[in-house]
Amino acid sequence: MRMLINGPETVVDDALRGMAAAHPDLLVDVENRVIMRRDAPVAGQVGIVSGGGSGHEPLHGGFVGPGMLSAACPGEVFTSPVPAQMLRAAGAVDSGQGVLFIVKNYTGDVLNFDMAAELAEEEGIRLGRVLVHDDVAVVDSLFTAGRRGTGATLFVEKIAGAAAAAGAPLEQVEEIGQRVNDTSRSFGVALSAVTTPAKGTPTFELPPGELELGIGIHGEPGRERRSMMTSREIAEYVVAAVLEDRTPTGPVLVLVNGMGATPLLELYGFNAEVQRILTERGVSVARTLVGNYVTSLDMAGCSVTICQVDDELLRLWDAPVRTAALRWGI
Amino acid sequence: MRMLINGPETVVDDALRGMAAAHPDLLVDVENRVIMRRDAPVAGQVGIVSGGGSGHEPLHGGFVGPGMLSAACPGEVFTSPVPAQMLRAAGAVDSGQGVLFIVKNYTGDVLNFDMAAELAEEEGIRLGRVLVHDDVAVVDSLFTAGRRGTGATLFVEKIAGAAAAAGAPLEQVEEIGQRVNDTSRSFGVALSAVTTPAKGTPTFELPPGELELGIGIHGEPGRERRSMMTSREIAEYVVAAVLEDRTPTGPVLVLVNGMGATPLLELYGFNAEVQRILTERGVSVARTLVGNYVTSLDMAGCSVTICQVDDELLRLWDAPVRTAALRWGI
Repeated sequence: MRMLINGPETVVDDALRGMAAAHPDLLVDVENRVIMRRDAPVAGQVGIVSGGGSGHEPLHGGFVGPGMLSAACPGEVFTSPVPAQMLRAAGAVDSGQGVLFIVKNYTGDVLNFDMAAELAEEEGIRLGRVLVHDDVAVVDSLFTAGRRGTGATLFVEKIAGAAAAAGAPLEQVEEIGQRVNDTSRSFGVALSAVTTPAKGTPTFELPPGELELGIGIHGEPGRERRSMMTSREIAEYVVAAVLEDRTPTGPVLVLVNGMGATPLLELYGFNAEVQRILTERGVSVARTLVGNYVTSLDMAGCSVTICQVDDELLRLWDAPVRTAALRWGI
Repeated sequence: MRMLINGPETVVDDALRGMAAAHPDLLVDVENRVIMRRDAPVAGQVGIVSGGGSGHEPLHGGFVGPGMLSAACPGEVFTSPVPAQMLRAAGAVDSGQGVLFIVKNYTGDVLNFDMAAELAEEEGIRLGRVLVHDDVAVVDSLFTAGRRGTGATLFVEKIAGAAAAAGAPLEQVEEIGQRVNDTSRSFGVALSAVTTPAKGTPTFELPPGELELGIGIHGEPGRERRSMMTSREIAEYVVAAVLEDRTPTGPVLVLVNGMGATPLLELYGFNAEVQRILTERGVSVARTLVGNYVTSLDMAGCSVTICQVDDELLRLWDAPVRTAALRWGI
């Protein structure tokens, strides 16, 4: 075990205390596990709440702030948060304009967010929901019926957040978030397994010299295992898988995302291959983001998410945002 | 080898092509290995050039942009850039106000930046230099006479960059950068070894269950090796080492920096311990930055840098910056 922790049982609480200390703009309720904008609720704006298991940082807590999430609810590592968290968050961020839940498609998350939505509606909060399910690698997986929600979550949270910040009503913010999910596709690759604090040993076996194509962000199995490939070969495989599922008919956002332990030097090199292939295939790239955003603890590897945008979505992507992990314009 | 690369010989060029594709604001000269602001030279402003071996990303290329570096010169992995790169960069960013070189204290970097400075001065460019040597772990090390330059580089580059952006003359920008170095101290810890693309195997042996206290950012040996410690124990050791060397007499900036493969979840948890200890010791923290900024490829571990600031330095730290890795206000 090579972890910088006090023990598996305090990992999430310790991280929340550390976030609170680093980011005075955030209100971090460690006991109830809610990370909020300090100025929530913001009058006239729809509140946006997301959350999920910890271990994917900066997702979701790193995306809380003006122009993106109003609040995030972290669960234990790779474990859904409980409804009481989302209910508390919804109550705290609702300005009367309603609240949008952004939920990654994992069985536990879906159930718990649905239960929180029911309870919140009983309290008179109007609720909308966007279910993110962008991972084309497999249908049904450990923890998931249908497709897994991965990198597109960042695009949905940013763009829906910008719509809310612009004062759009709940139905419109929900429709915009839905549209982003619908035009987004992802595919991930693992070069090493992931080790959770509770288990202390890798959650699956991946011998050196092999890689897993189509991996999930919890180390769920992908499509196939192969002998190590070059960055160029991996990019060809990944981009083909994404474009096969949906061929863009307009400009796209590209996220070249690290799983946690792959150096930024390598991610940029991989991005060079991804961009070359997209250009060769006639896909027009409007914006690119390279870095560790939707991670899987100490897993080495990467994923590519491609999201087709129209003028409205691109303008919302470019709108100012101020969070711990994504910030521009303010 | 679990690397996302085409081969050791193209790692740096591939990464530069990937940076160029992701950041249209940057002018990336892949052939000559210079990353520049596209709008350089900026009239009336001192140019700021840094650089060093690759493998520490986002340092330095990720810090090029308004409010920080004018240009960065990446060498091969863990290898100094050559004088021709810094000479080219200096010529390209000099608006007539002169150029400041920010150099981490490693023998190769010092020699090559000095040679570039001589050549640039022969071409009529006024040159200043700040040598960063903040690592209190050891005096003299592999590649270094004196102290190693590590995390403080980020503080020097940001604050000197802000001074240059505000129109300060060369002597003043240099003095400010010098002041930041003088009040900064760092200490790093490795939980795993680092593997370079060229070698393909770890550059040193660190058995599971042990950690190296006082490690350098190239895996250079530290002070001692111990059995695995908790996050709390590591923080006690690291903060004590930093404060023993220099006790702040005023507010500080804190950088809790990941070495590359340690999850952000763990870095935030570690930050909670660091902040608690600083508070207990009466150190007033003005700003905190948590993340992977001065890395060592796939090494697991972290470092802490503490920089005492006066009102002027804090104002310059808070000033707007727009780079790939550090951005706020614009």
